[in-house]
Amino acid sequence: MSAPHDPAVSSTLSLDELTRLLETIFVRHGTSAEVARTLAANCAGAERDGAHSHGVFRMPGYVSTLNSGWVDGRAVPHVEDVASGFVRVDAGNGFAQPALAAARPLLVEKARSAGIAVLAIRNSHHFAALWPDVEPFAEEGLVALSVVNSMTCVVPHGADRPLFGTNPIAFAAPRADGAPIVFDLATSAIAHGDVQIAARQGEKLPAGMGVDSLGQPTQDPKAILGGGALLPFGGHKGSALSMMVELLAAALTGGNFSFEFDWSNHPGAKTPWTGQLLIVIDPGKAAGQSFVERSQELVRQMHGVGLKRLPGDRRHLQRARSLSEGIVLDGATMAQLRELAGL
Amino acid sequence: MSAPHDPAVSSTLSLDELTRLLETIFVRHGTSAEVARTLAANCAGAERDGAHSHGVFRMPGYVSTLNSGWVDGRAVPHVEDVASGFVRVDAGNGFAQPALAAARPLLVEKARSAGIAVLAIRNSHHFAALWPDVEPFAEEGLVALSVVNSMTCVVPHGADRPLFGTNPIAFAAPRADGAPIVFDLATSAIAHGDVQIAARQGEKLPAGMGVDSLGQPTQDPKAILGGGALLPFGGHKGSALSMMVELLAAALTGGNFSFEFDWSNHPGAKTPWTGQLLIVIDPGKAAGQSFVERSQELVRQMHGVGLKRLPGDRRHLQRARSLSEGIVLDGATMAQLRELAGL
Repeated sequence: MSAPHDPAVSSTLSLDELTRLLETIFVRHGTSAEVARTLAANCAGAERDGAHSHGVFRMPGYVSTLNSGWVDGRAVPHVEDVASGFVRVDAGNGFAQPALAAARPLLVEKARSAGIAVLAIRNSHHFAALWPDVEPFAEEGLVALSVVNSMTCVVPHGADRPLFGTNPIAFAAPRADGAPIVFDLATSAIAHGDVQIAARQGEKLPAGMGVDSLGQPTQDPKAILGGGALLPFGGHKGSALSMMVELLAAALTGGNFSFEFDWSNHPGAKTPWTGQLLIVIDPGKAAGQSFVERSQELVRQMHGVGLKRLPGDRRHLQRARSLSEGIVLDGATMAQLRELAGL
Repeated sequence: MSAPHDPAVSSTLSLDELTRLLETIFVRHGTSAEVARTLAANCAGAERDGAHSHGVFRMPGYVSTLNSGWVDGRAVPHVEDVASGFVRVDAGNGFAQPALAAARPLLVEKARSAGIAVLAIRNSHHFAALWPDVEPFAEEGLVALSVVNSMTCVVPHGADRPLFGTNPIAFAAPRADGAPIVFDLATSAIAHGDVQIAARQGEKLPAGMGVDSLGQPTQDPKAILGGGALLPFGGHKGSALSMMVELLAAALTGGNFSFEFDWSNHPGAKTPWTGQLLIVIDPGKAAGQSFVERSQELVRQMHGVGLKRLPGDRRHLQRARSLSEGIVLDGATMAQLRELAGL
């Protein structure tokens, strides 16, 4: 990567190479080495899995946020052991992922001992996909559920104006054969990034995704972005789940609701300053046949009724490909990353 | 109620009167006094709240199920104290509500001590609404989440044939002023009862609710009931949540998946023989301002963006009316209940 770079030519990087490049960018823009390691591994992992909207696409946003002084890239999370099943972390206005990493050993120990444990992260910024937070628990045989609230852009069902964030829910469970069962779903009808892409390409959205600045239904992505808002997925049901995410990720952690932070004095800031909740369960405490055999049976039956692809399957396929063939970045992206890294 | 009853005239009963009438029916059809008390209170409470699909409308189904020998109305739940945050109950092929009632004190004690606790009910039948299982926790200041799987009638998104149950998710949280925030949502696009009502009335359903016996989309409720199936709400997202409910309510409890029980030798059986999971969290362990103040603030903001009605509001209004004015049952319903009670 130290050779001069031709922006017309794509690059193929190993996961290690990409991770180190992203680490360089984070450190150069003011994070500690430890925060850089955690965020770089997260972001490179998303790119490895083909989850492009949360891969290197996010790096300019991380950088502009760090440059704006909105987030503390050197924050040291403060872990509190509250009860036999309850861990709290004050992320210190830093990122959520280092807070999770700091609390993780205690959380796993409690989940295995108590059968279930909760991690309440507050004063934190989450700018990544949510599945990387839950998948590793399933890889060590635990069941994990996480919710994070974000920033006001979703109109509650039956309301006129936006209040909730896109408020995703992620879940991971181990199974006997193959990668864990993992999903990560926004409770908004569509992801914000997909609206941006449609706006850029001049495309109409399907009906039911959003409203304009007057609260009227629109299929025009620019009207949604220009003062409009998203709708929850699935009408009143998705809206109820989004409300639950606000209660669990903010009210139950001591973090901000999606509508409570004001970043207007930090131009370039992109990261919602909220909270995150994780619940981890040890299925070894369940009665009957082993959980992984049971979850495998569910997968078998899902395929039996004609399901081609499980949630997460596409990511795992792309992961295997990236690990054997490398991660391909187009020339423009590579040039941008090198510039952010000062190379 | 001992006077002769004219089926052309509606009756007004107090909650107590209705509960005692339903108790009589349960005991007459073979339940223990304790099971009768629990189920009668549950069913009368739904009727009191105007949740008619889970009120006295369910009584003929309870009776035919008990008469079929499918469920043990005298089952004594066996509670196991597994770990500091984990309680298991074997419902003994009985109803889920008495199992929850038996485990409840231990569950609450653990949630208050550990900060979070899980109750895994297996070998159980759930034929009621799910919100009555979570709301009482919020009434004593706890946050509760519950899932229960049911019986194969929902086609996983991307599959051809049904596998999942209607698999509801219920959530309850306390707030400073007013009744708890409570929702209870099926992960199917529409409730089975609503399809039956549409079929009876010869009405078309909205698009996207179900498929016919060939797996083709249909708006004909009779085609859905005659060998067809329901779809999940919200496409792949509701489907992922339904899958999660199977994993939590069955795989994690030791209960049956929605597709695993065979009631063909029990004509009249209506109650799915599966499992149920409850997670209870003590928000007193959270950092910052008290949870009930925070949840109240969220409600205030939801009203501020134009939301007229919270989930649960309608039930609470009807509850107040029923408690002051009594519960009105039409003459035919009252005649049926008296007949089931042998009066």
